[in-house]
Amino acid sequence: MFVGIDIGGTNIKLIALGARGRVLGRRSIPSDVEKGPKDAFSRIASTVSSLIADKSALTAAGVACAGLVDPVAGRLHSSPNLLAWENAPLARIAREHLGVYTVVENDANAAAYGEYFRGCGRGLGTFVCITLGTGVGGAIVIDGRLLRGSKNYAGEIGHTTICESGPRCHCGSRGCVEAYLGAYALIRETRQKLRTRRSRYLTQWVSQRCPLTPKLIAEAAAKGDSVAREVFAEAGTHLGTAMANLINIFNPDVIAVAGGVAKGFHLMKPRMDEEIRKRAFPESSRVARVARARLGTDAAAIGAALLARDSVPGR
Amino acid sequence: MFVGIDIGGTNIKLIALGARGRVLGRRSIPSDVEKGPKDAFSRIASTVSSLIADKSALTAAGVACAGLVDPVAGRLHSSPNLLAWENAPLARIAREHLGVYTVVENDANAAAYGEYFRGCGRGLGTFVCITLGTGVGGAIVIDGRLLRGSKNYAGEIGHTTICESGPRCHCGSRGCVEAYLGAYALIRETRQKLRTRRSRYLTQWVSQRCPLTPKLIAEAAAKGDSVAREVFAEAGTHLGTAMANLINIFNPDVIAVAGGVAKGFHLMKPRMDEEIRKRAFPESSRVARVARARLGTDAAAIGAALLARDSVPGR
Repeated sequence: MFVGIDIGGTNIKLIALGARGRVLGRRSIPSDVEKGPKDAFSRIASTVSSLIADKSALTAAGVACAGLVDPVAGRLHSSPNLLAWENAPLARIAREHLGVYTVVENDANAAAYGEYFRGCGRGLGTFVCITLGTGVGGAIVIDGRLLRGSKNYAGEIGHTTICESGPRCHCGSRGCVEAYLGAYALIRETRQKLRTRRSRYLTQWVSQRCPLTPKLIAEAAAKGDSVAREVFAEAGTHLGTAMANLINIFNPDVIAVAGGVAKGFHLMKPRMDEEIRKRAFPESSRVARVARARLGTDAAAIGAALLARDSVPGR
Repeated sequence: MFVGIDIGGTNIKLIALGARGRVLGRRSIPSDVEKGPKDAFSRIASTVSSLIADKSALTAAGVACAGLVDPVAGRLHSSPNLLAWENAPLARIAREHLGVYTVVENDANAAAYGEYFRGCGRGLGTFVCITLGTGVGGAIVIDGRLLRGSKNYAGEIGHTTICESGPRCHCGSRGCVEAYLGAYALIRETRQKLRTRRSRYLTQWVSQRCPLTPKLIAEAAAKGDSVAREVFAEAGTHLGTAMANLINIFNPDVIAVAGGVAKGFHLMKPRMDEEIRKRAFPESSRVARVARARLGTDAAAIGAALLARDSVPGR
């Protein structure tokens, strides 16, 4: 058995996986990141014990976390949500507490690896995963191997430019994919439209002090709110440009769309398809299947467990 | 020994390589594409005999050509410069005439493979090659393997969008890298500037009916012509955006710049560097070395020979 540990800013998710990749159990515990990684891993170890009764059945563990991760050294370099953990030798700490071989991976990479083998990727060919959440992330798996680049920083699809003079992005650049599709971008676009137009639901909800989130915008859109629908439709155009770029660069078999904002995917899809048709090579776009990710918030933990399974020495 | 055969619209270049990748000899013959691939390969076979006296010393051959190439089937699907050869089973024809194992590859891929192992790539890590010629092409080599994608169409860096509302590209889309950096884009920009401004050399040369080419613009720039220098400087900004996208996606060790337009590279470099600084993650751009390609017009033939060497069965 293998355990995948997804360390988020709020919760730590644990998933136990059988050798063939079947989910055997899951737990969630508070992150309490300010107490540091040693405290977290001592709590993780107790949780693993409750998840896998026979300790000798555990072969290896995979740890996923946001930020710059060095999988070779098993170290977390920097992470906006885990500031207190910076430079922590996570693989070593995990090994000490769990007593098994441990790998550490960036959460976007781990999630893509999970989707590739156990989600919508079907375990074959060239697979690109784009995550639409607060930010826009990504990762690429080719023939079962993560595309890592020189220092494991590859896959920053969200920070590729699709319009040189476009809106400011949180990364400091302009016209990044994230500057159009990140949560803050959708909120910005909605606010701008609400200044001059009345919307059936959003105007009322916002006046009732509901915080404007992509989820709220998606709910309004689902009820037929025209402003909300337009925001997603326009986002679809930019998503299509980003997709076309990925299709022309990778000639992928599958592009998975993951993350919370993907809830509005069906609203983005018509313009996305139109833009792909305009921009991508037909030979390439014909083979590229665009699919919703299937593992939801389990993806990173499952992927981490699979990475542990696939890299444990002697296998 | 191995032979690499680069089939262009005008000439066919042949390069003989030793097992360690040393160039042992080269030849060039006219393509005469309209006579078809069988005629070409019978002439190629005679040329190979003149290049490698002892026929038994030839182990395998690699064929590079522009267009959509299926390396598994050894077939050329379509090629704008080799219309008469479309759908030709090149690997089979080559095997029949040369009597050895033959691989077929797209010329951009072959050139990148050559640069990776025998040029500026140093044979390690993640390598991206961008070719600035009439069009803008590209290819990626990761840990010694070409990134092919599902059907060998990967690497179309030139047709990724860097500005959604940008100028029309020959591919039918808008704002592609090629729409700013292809030969026709540089010529378009120069013409536009010459309409309202006098340039020291270009105005005169063009009035003497010199055809406006990137080479001519580069010559004028080398003499200090302000319009020509501005054209390259502005192109540098867009090249920088394209580079930043590649850096954020691939976290490469090396990005090679190849092709004829790369002659103006030093004129593009300042703005390119500035744009990379603005747009790429510093962690990634710090490790990405941007280098001029080293093998020049030999790259595709050398790469094809290396691909043959590295894929010959039983090695």
